[in-house]
Amino acid sequence: MLIKQLAIIGVGLIGGSLARILRKMDACGEIVGCGRNLDNLEKAIELGVIDHYETDIKKAVAQADMVIVAVPLGAMANVFATMQDALLPDAIITDVGSAKGCVLEDAQKNLGTHYSRFVAGHPIAGTEKSGVTASFAELFTHRRVILTPTAETDKQAHEKVTQMWQLAGAEVVDMVVEHHDEVLAATSHLPHVLAYSLVHTLAEMEDRIEIFRYAAGGFRDFTRIASSDPKMWHDICLANKEAVLKILAQFNQDLAQLGQAIEQENSHEIMNIFNRAKTSRDEFNG
Amino acid sequence: MLIKQLAIIGVGLIGGSLARILRKMDACGEIVGCGRNLDNLEKAIELGVIDHYETDIKKAVAQADMVIVAVPLGAMANVFATMQDALLPDAIITDVGSAKGCVLEDAQKNLGTHYSRFVAGHPIAGTEKSGVTASFAELFTHRRVILTPTAETDKQAHEKVTQMWQLAGAEVVDMVVEHHDEVLAATSHLPHVLAYSLVHTLAEMEDRIEIFRYAAGGFRDFTRIASSDPKMWHDICLANKEAVLKILAQFNQDLAQLGQAIEQENSHEIMNIFNRAKTSRDEFNG
Repeated sequence: MLIKQLAIIGVGLIGGSLARILRKMDACGEIVGCGRNLDNLEKAIELGVIDHYETDIKKAVAQADMVIVAVPLGAMANVFATMQDALLPDAIITDVGSAKGCVLEDAQKNLGTHYSRFVAGHPIAGTEKSGVTASFAELFTHRRVILTPTAETDKQAHEKVTQMWQLAGAEVVDMVVEHHDEVLAATSHLPHVLAYSLVHTLAEMEDRIEIFRYAAGGFRDFTRIASSDPKMWHDICLANKEAVLKILAQFNQDLAQLGQAIEQENSHEIMNIFNRAKTSRDEFNG
Repeated sequence: MLIKQLAIIGVGLIGGSLARILRKMDACGEIVGCGRNLDNLEKAIELGVIDHYETDIKKAVAQADMVIVAVPLGAMANVFATMQDALLPDAIITDVGSAKGCVLEDAQKNLGTHYSRFVAGHPIAGTEKSGVTASFAELFTHRRVILTPTAETDKQAHEKVTQMWQLAGAEVVDMVVEHHDEVLAATSHLPHVLAYSLVHTLAEMEDRIEIFRYAAGGFRDFTRIASSDPKMWHDICLANKEAVLKILAQFNQDLAQLGQAIEQENSHEIMNIFNRAKTSRDEFNG
């Protein structure tokens, strides 16, 4: 068995789904959940996602050979600091945060000697829903999980976290941490910022009720991610601030250019941009 | 039978789907298709969407009591001008364009005495796909169709077009033309501009292949509309230029404010915007 006792700090969509698939694959013995929302933890027991729960992080990790930290990015530092003294000497720790530079920094500052067995990870999977009731075992099937090991990362810990995600059905890829944060700022963090911002703009309009009434399928798809958990995305924006602001600046510049082309009725320029976008979108998405 | 002979100018996703459902509902006798792409017209015959086709607009409309103009907005004026002399004296003409002010102007200038029987319409339905092969009879089921009749619009023509769309399964709503163009700029035209612009920005980045490789479900949903027909959306941006630029300016202002909040790590402001957006999105979309 890959894992004897698994501790999941934060039993939400990601943590819950990982527990479900590892249980299904018979990859771990006992699963301990930990969190602050008792209703959610009771629900997790009821759904068979975890075997039991603790509200005290120290107790939750005390016997765990693998600890998954699946809390919002802003809570990572505290969680690491709290668990540090309670961890088994050879416990492996990993996380599922959407930005990695900040998490590595938090881990280095707060995990003490356990830092070498911390493997930063990011499953590129999720939905706009949250909480354990939204979790399902197939969430990671054929999805990519990016790990950002450093020179200090223990090879065995890295290997074991890789195996865990492979058992969950994911394709595991290693990436340099700065590169991860740039790529995700472009493909995930900026789109969320734009979706939230657009829905906010429309919500502030006088005829907002009328406006939303006439929103069709394209708008629903476009704004689905604006239904994501605000606190989680607040944390991501701050945790990956530098990369997010950089790609936002580039986007603003390009959007201004497109706006000007529309203003000037520059058909050639508009068609260039739209064609280039459609070709790329169709190319990578079949 | 509501319609004796239906002429569809532009047998694509919208025109094809309308032909399919009206045939299915036994609402019309013969269906004549018209367009410039012979392969598409042959395909339309093969699929049973139309009975026969003409490449000459005059011939296509010569016996039609109902004419649907389903061509890109930039082609409307020419299509109206070409059909004017060939139309039956009591023929009803309608369109399916995504902006309505410009179409009414084109119709008034180019339909002569037939203008009073022109009923401007816009089905709020569609997918990112185009062409007759993408058409299906259920496209309009429970969707809204906005009509923008004017003081000059013939009451019987208005009534017949309303009936036609109701038979197609849609809910028909009348709206003042300027209001339609503002509402659609906000909920449809701006989102398309943003999606095209974002995908274009990423496509111009050095590591574009890597970037698109790590794009997950949220990105795919967010950018689906960037796979829409570039020519059609080019035409929409120009046809509804004023309303599009107005809402784009508002969006830019709000996005700059959000960017500044991220820059200054103003959690209160970020959470306000994200929460407001999520609440609105969840409210109107269940």
